Amino acid sequence: MASLRIREAKEGDCADILRLVRELAEYEKLSDQVTISEEALRADGFGENPFYHCLVAEILPAPGELQGQGIGSKIIKRVAEVALDKGCSQFRLAVLDWNKRAMDLYKALGAQDLTEAEGWHSFRFEGEAMREMAGR
Amino acid sequence: MASLRIREAKEGDCADILRLVRELAEYEKLSDQVTISEEALRADGFGENPFYHCLVAEILPAPGELQGQGIGSKIIKRVAEVALDKGCSQFRLAVLDWNKRAMDLYKALGAQDLTEAEGWHSFRFEGEAMREMAGR
Repeated sequence: MASLRIREAKEGDCADILRLVRELAEYEKLSDQVTISEEALRADGFGENPFYHCLVAEILPAPGELQGQGIGSKIIKRVAEVALDKGCSQFRLAVLDWNKRAMDLYKALGAQDLTEAEGWHSFRFEGEAMREMAGR
Repeated sequence: MASLRIREAKEGDCADILRLVRELAEYEKLSDQVTISEEALRADGFGENPFYHCLVAEILPAPGELQGQGIGSKIIKRVAEVALDKGCSQFRLAVLDWNKRAMDLYKALGAQDLTEAEGWHSFRFEGEAMREMAGR
């Protein structure tokens, strides 16, 4: 039986984090949107005012097939613990509408699909639009 | 002609911020979701590691009708400046699908509707689900 440990990410994990970001983007068919470098991940996550926080799941020995081990569910539960400890009243996840496996998991864990239930859409301003607005 | 000044929020603005949050929620027909207090706004935004940052638009003399003054557009442009200064590569806004005026403005300013274009849905975990997951 494999053993699972969920811990806070360290700066030394950034190469692995970037690899997983790329694998996720490939699964999401959005690889062209991954422009971040390992250096930027280090700077953004491990400076004085970090832009992101990250949990890492270590599973040993690593099975060939990672799906079906309940890792996603355990990470989301840990996120709930961290959020409660920090005084958050809610947290949100973004998911693609064809990723039925993820949507079913989030619903089973008690989440509500705000896009479906209330009509929330996510709008993104990217670099070119930002620079045009700022006149730079 | 009214004059517009956009500045960072101060802790003393929290009563006005809460009033505007409530007015926005009323417009969005989601008033029952506003559970935050002025005290929580002060604690969350003006402690050591603030949970949010806030810009305030002061318009003097305040006209009876605020729509059509270009205030929304000017605030979003300031957000773009702040984001570029902080090294952000993008920023996102959430909008309800029936709020055509807001969606048209965001598109005119160069944003992309990610929900429409790529199928992103927003999932929310609330207090009860969080506590159940954390076993608290």
